[in-house]
Amino acid sequence: MGFLAVKNIMLTIEYDGTGYHGWQSQKNALAIQDVIEGALKKITGEDIRLTGSGRTDAGVHALGQVANFHTSSSIPPEKFSYALNSHLPDDIVIKKSAEVSESFHSRYDAKGKKYRYIIFNYEFPSPLMRRREWHIRRPLDREAMKKSLKYLLGKHDFSAFMSSGSSAENTVRTVMAAELKDDGQRIIFEITADGFLYNMVRIIVGTLAKVGTGEMVPDEMQRIIESCDRERAGSTAPAWGLYLVEVYYDNIP
Amino acid sequence: MGFLAVKNIMLTIEYDGTGYHGWQSQKNALAIQDVIEGALKKITGEDIRLTGSGRTDAGVHALGQVANFHTSSSIPPEKFSYALNSHLPDDIVIKKSAEVSESFHSRYDAKGKKYRYIIFNYEFPSPLMRRREWHIRRPLDREAMKKSLKYLLGKHDFSAFMSSGSSAENTVRTVMAAELKDDGQRIIFEITADGFLYNMVRIIVGTLAKVGTGEMVPDEMQRIIESCDRERAGSTAPAWGLYLVEVYYDNIP
Repeated sequence: MGFLAVKNIMLTIEYDGTGYHGWQSQKNALAIQDVIEGALKKITGEDIRLTGSGRTDAGVHALGQVANFHTSSSIPPEKFSYALNSHLPDDIVIKKSAEVSESFHSRYDAKGKKYRYIIFNYEFPSPLMRRREWHIRRPLDREAMKKSLKYLLGKHDFSAFMSSGSSAENTVRTVMAAELKDDGQRIIFEITADGFLYNMVRIIVGTLAKVGTGEMVPDEMQRIIESCDRERAGSTAPAWGLYLVEVYYDNIP
Repeated sequence: MGFLAVKNIMLTIEYDGTGYHGWQSQKNALAIQDVIEGALKKITGEDIRLTGSGRTDAGVHALGQVANFHTSSSIPPEKFSYALNSHLPDDIVIKKSAEVSESFHSRYDAKGKKYRYIIFNYEFPSPLMRRREWHIRRPLDREAMKKSLKYLLGKHDFSAFMSSGSSAENTVRTVMAAELKDDGQRIIFEITADGFLYNMVRIIVGTLAKVGTGEMVPDEMQRIIESCDRERAGSTAPAWGLYLVEVYYDNIP
């Protein structure tokens, strides 16, 4: 009688989202998930379905996306990164692979995520960072932007920062950290929360930009949150400035 | 009688060198200089020859390349950046344009330059920084690399760090600053000198990498400089990790 030990493998993934239609598989468009599943098929012979920690939109980047899959392959868990990278294009890299407990689920078990958004605030865009940051010509008031961040902290109904068309039933999220680093011409916004609504970071950034240009005062951020009205927040910032930095879990495996 | 006032315009240029055969025009290959000269032709109608501060090799990037040209165009000097950028591809951007004195020459008047080189020291390359840094898998000893830097400082014959085939007659250069920042997986080397020999930064970095892996001890750097022997230095590091950061001039204009 044969016996196939099934392992649960967790991947940590960096990608340049420019060339893909986001993380998640969909009809008629190439997703990052498809490419990695294709590489898994090549190295294991199995039809493996990856479970990602969550979607990222077309053009959004990741420094630490997490996904897991079950396999009966004999490839040692920590070697999947090497095996997969040799079959992946150079805009997707598996930074780490490791065996996790059988029940680990990269989406259900995620306790939080950290996102980064980069704004380039200068007269002209930066060629070396094209498709990796949002170019805003108009000078932004960093101090005003920083002042508005405190209203984001804590537990709120963030439905003002959710794109319509989302099916989320619970729109309450807890923001643990929100900070803005002023790196000369670059403004780097980082936000950590227990979860994010659809387009939440990009709409927050669009709102921050309005605070930066003076179209909104900093404490307008509080009123927008309280309103739960998408119409009052800023527009959705471009996908290409956004990075999924890290996904947090309790005690892995 | 017509009178054409000729102006001398200085450009500060950022480019992603990936798609070009270096800065300088040559036969049968597209150089960054050609692309900017083509844009100048479009906006002025003149056949303008740009003078760059110096060459950069194929694949090398620039954050602050400098070039100048003479024109009788009526475009205001500070507006050349806008006019040119509207005709340039997104991997070349004129960050600034300004009128300078008639005699200014971006190569002859350069008092020094600063270069940056980025090494990514991790098991796997970074997709988001591909073609923008040198990936070295083997762990590098940052402290040993730092120790070797002091030998570079000051006035030396750097012919050990010059690629053969160069026609430089004077191989003495003065290094004003050389530092290495350890940014986790990234190692950022910056060097400022009154001038650089052909491939000098890339050969220094190739040598630093050998110090980092332990193939050379730090003070071997001194013996290599004294030897004036290219064979004793490390190999030439890849072009794509190199950035021309800044060109220094006295009192412009």
